Amino acid sequence: MFESAEIGHKIDKKIYKEEVPELRASLIEAQFNLVQAAKFPVIILVGGVDGAGRSETVNLLSEWMDPRHIQVHGFGPPTDEERQRPYMWRFWRVLPPKGKIGVFFGSWYTDMVEDSVADKVIPAQLDQHIHQIVQFEHMLTAEKALVIKFWFHVTQKTQRKRLKAFEKDPKLRWRVTKQDWERVKQYDKYCQVSEHILRETSTAEAPWIVVEGTDHKYRNLTVGKVLLEAITSRLSHPFKERRSTAPPLLPPIDNQHILSTLDMTQTLPKPEYKEALEHYQGKLNLLVRQPQFAQRALVAVFEGWDSAGKGGSIRRVAAAMDARWYTVIPIGAPTEEELAQPYLWRFWRHIPQRGRVTIFDRSWYGRVLVERVENLCSESAWMRAYNEINDFEKQLVNHNIIVAKFWLNISKEEQLRRFKEREQVRFKQFKITDEDWRNREKWDAYETAICDMVERTSTLEAPWTLVEANDKRFARIKVLKTLCEQLEATMKQ
Amino acid sequence: MFESAEIGHKIDKKIYKEEVPELRASLIEAQFNLVQAAKFPVIILVGGVDGAGRSETVNLLSEWMDPRHIQVHGFGPPTDEERQRPYMWRFWRVLPPKGKIGVFFGSWYTDMVEDSVADKVIPAQLDQHIHQIVQFEHMLTAEKALVIKFWFHVTQKTQRKRLKAFEKDPKLRWRVTKQDWERVKQYDKYCQVSEHILRETSTAEAPWIVVEGTDHKYRNLTVGKVLLEAITSRLSHPFKERRSTAPPLLPPIDNQHILSTLDMTQTLPKPEYKEALEHYQGKLNLLVRQPQFAQRALVAVFEGWDSAGKGGSIRRVAAAMDARWYTVIPIGAPTEEELAQPYLWRFWRHIPQRGRVTIFDRSWYGRVLVERVENLCSESAWMRAYNEINDFEKQLVNHNIIVAKFWLNISKEEQLRRFKEREQVRFKQFKITDEDWRNREKWDAYETAICDMVERTSTLEAPWTLVEANDKRFARIKVLKTLCEQLEATMKQ
Repeated sequence: MFESAEIGHKIDKKIYKEEVPELRASLIEAQFNLVQAAKFPVIILVGGVDGAGRSETVNLLSEWMDPRHIQVHGFGPPTDEERQRPYMWRFWRVLPPKGKIGVFFGSWYTDMVEDSVADKVIPAQLDQHIHQIVQFEHMLTAEKALVIKFWFHVTQKTQRKRLKAFEKDPKLRWRVTKQDWERVKQYDKYCQVSEHILRETSTAEAPWIVVEGTDHKYRNLTVGKVLLEAITSRLSHPFKERRSTAPPLLPPIDNQHILSTLDMTQTLPKPEYKEALEHYQGKLNLLVRQPQFAQRALVAVFEGWDSAGKGGSIRRVAAAMDARWYTVIPIGAPTEEELAQPYLWRFWRHIPQRGRVTIFDRSWYGRVLVERVENLCSESAWMRAYNEINDFEKQLVNHNIIVAKFWLNISKEEQLRRFKEREQVRFKQFKITDEDWRNREKWDAYETAICDMVERTSTLEAPWTLVEANDKRFARIKVLKTLCEQLEATMKQ
Repeated sequence: MFESAEIGHKIDKKIYKEEVPELRASLIEAQFNLVQAAKFPVIILVGGVDGAGRSETVNLLSEWMDPRHIQVHGFGPPTDEERQRPYMWRFWRVLPPKGKIGVFFGSWYTDMVEDSVADKVIPAQLDQHIHQIVQFEHMLTAEKALVIKFWFHVTQKTQRKRLKAFEKDPKLRWRVTKQDWERVKQYDKYCQVSEHILRETSTAEAPWIVVEGTDHKYRNLTVGKVLLEAITSRLSHPFKERRSTAPPLLPPIDNQHILSTLDMTQTLPKPEYKEALEHYQGKLNLLVRQPQFAQRALVAVFEGWDSAGKGGSIRRVAAAMDARWYTVIPIGAPTEEELAQPYLWRFWRHIPQRGRVTIFDRSWYGRVLVERVENLCSESAWMRAYNEINDFEKQLVNHNIIVAKFWLNISKEEQLRRFKEREQVRFKQFKITDEDWRNREKWDAYETAICDMVERTSTLEAPWTLVEANDKRFARIKVLKTLCEQLEATMKQ
């Protein structure tokens, strides 16, 4: 892939001086339109070999454009905060919102390339990592991000020359370290590895653009022109979500499904309940105080029909723990800030650090439940969400986070009873709205969506637990018990 | 993923009898419309556990629909023919054309599942394989195929019961083998492995549909209804290619590119040419007769400007070999049969068996050259072609096939000279057409396309060789020499 970037591209000084003012003006204008439209974010990846002008280019972009709407992120060794979370967390947290430009100087590629050069991974593992990256970028582009990936390349000879020039210059000498010279020696391997990675990750939606870094005028003009063309062409041809081309998911053709098989008559009398509550809350308390839990974390997801008792169950779980250990995140309509980001961003922000617990009262499953049923997102969007969610949870599990998911199920009749009760009891009135009644009308559509959800996202590592919740006491104990069992089983591993 | 398929789905006999005639009629009608429109192929994958009614379903489909337009493929151990080619070749050769239905009973998933159950692959290798499958199906759906993947599931208990019932029935006893009982023992592992694979390959474009196989009436109705809905909904909402959302690939911003760096003045005087020709043809002859070559094969690709001398070079290469060893495949406009298939199908057919040579006079690179420049395919199509081509060639290389690619380059002036010469020499007149003159007008656009092609598809394992071909003798020797060197280098490994 580097042939075109080793032929000595060069721009004449005079031409450069003529072209730059025009290009800068156009870039500023494009950026202004980007901010105004606020329809998509621009994600610029900057990678390449040492001495190919990466940092100079990054600085130039900030200089040429309005720095208020462009953010540059360098990625050194992960911080404490970051080490506590899955690898991709550090990138999710700084994704630019719609209308803004994020420059990633070093990115999700850096470690992959370095580890391969250092022979820390075998080829199959590298390909595994590549696959994850491809899926991640696929999600970004499907969520409308404009992803531009620049790879700056120079020959080994040029690299040597630059380092020597720096060393001679008293003002730049500090830039050259022993490691730099070590890396020059690894040049061939570095190129071989990165060529493989670039090729495998040069997708139709987010291809790599290799730029020869020797002549700064050529480099600058190329980057500027690519950027300008990419932004203006996307602005004039807005992203249209494509109709799903998949075979449709059908509702069950008999009247049986996983919810209808639940024994909804199960109850737990008060005395047994009290005893069990004390038992399991005590157990849960001990479990999260175990030393092994300090190397883990818990993400508990609560979903369920309106009035199924999510709140009550969550309170019983929370009551078992010190308030400093857990956070409850209620998920409602997304904020403006959240709407400007890929769908999963609002959940990534709340991933707990090691030894902590995050409880989600409703969750990322909204996309395949309410958003699907109410047509709040396209069919393609919720169809791909199953994959994205599985990916997301796999990353949590691989990071030793325990993922527990509860569906609180009540019958249609029980819901009616509770709705009516809520309307009559004054302090419960705030809990029932017109929307609840409207949702109720779509019971069947929700049922189909719930079954598809469980079928497509219940995994060995992050299983769904269906909770028969017509009896609140029974439900609460089942939740606590399951949680304890899952924690025990995982921590034994 | 199997929860919904373990709950005892069942259809009442009476309802079944009522619904089937209607469903069959609709299916036949849908199939008729599918054949008439001939806009997309339907690819049905049938997988699942033993005893879940896979073969019964496959037979039923042939019975319910018009068997002239539906083809069922079973895949046992690969044939001689198939073993000689890359793994995916056996599937490519039987892909259904547009308008037809292909049922794959066993598929590209079978070996992957079996190998994992037998612990023949480590998880990272499995994921590598999964990634390849996802890319393959992504290509199929991007090429408009409707891909429907059924997975038939029953519990271990049902599986046992069915086998015992077969054993008791004298007419069906033959169906039960020792292996079947061995496999029942591996049930848990089989489910665990296939759940992972199903989840990872359940993409938005081609999700798995898990069907409970216990009750044949439920199974049949489900398959029939999914199929009907999938075909009719695609017929009424034709596939629309989406505008590419990638940042555009720009032409070089200075006037330098990999072609402009070639020293086009190189020549080879006749006497040296004659000597070299004899030398390298002899060498090539010896190389393909080496015993190691019997375990390999050669795919040589010739691309170049009109009148660059592809034919002459190919003749010099061919002349070095026994005519039984090689085939020359001239690639012109695709045939009707080829147009009804995914783009790469017409090239897959010609992959040589071991020990043989296929020479392509023009090739799959047409998509990123003439089809790109002449707008014969969409931007998304040629943008994703770089990946598809790299994948394709990687499969060849992994199968020990040597891939050599030559771009024969001439200057614009030299082309003009040759065109004029062709017009004047009677026996060469057939070689020059209006189209050649028209192509010439788009010289710059072709140049950009060629540079992008070389940059994005020249790999260590399947490199491009740029041949300075203003002097025919020089070009022919460079081709022969490079070919010999590449064969030598690869066979040493």
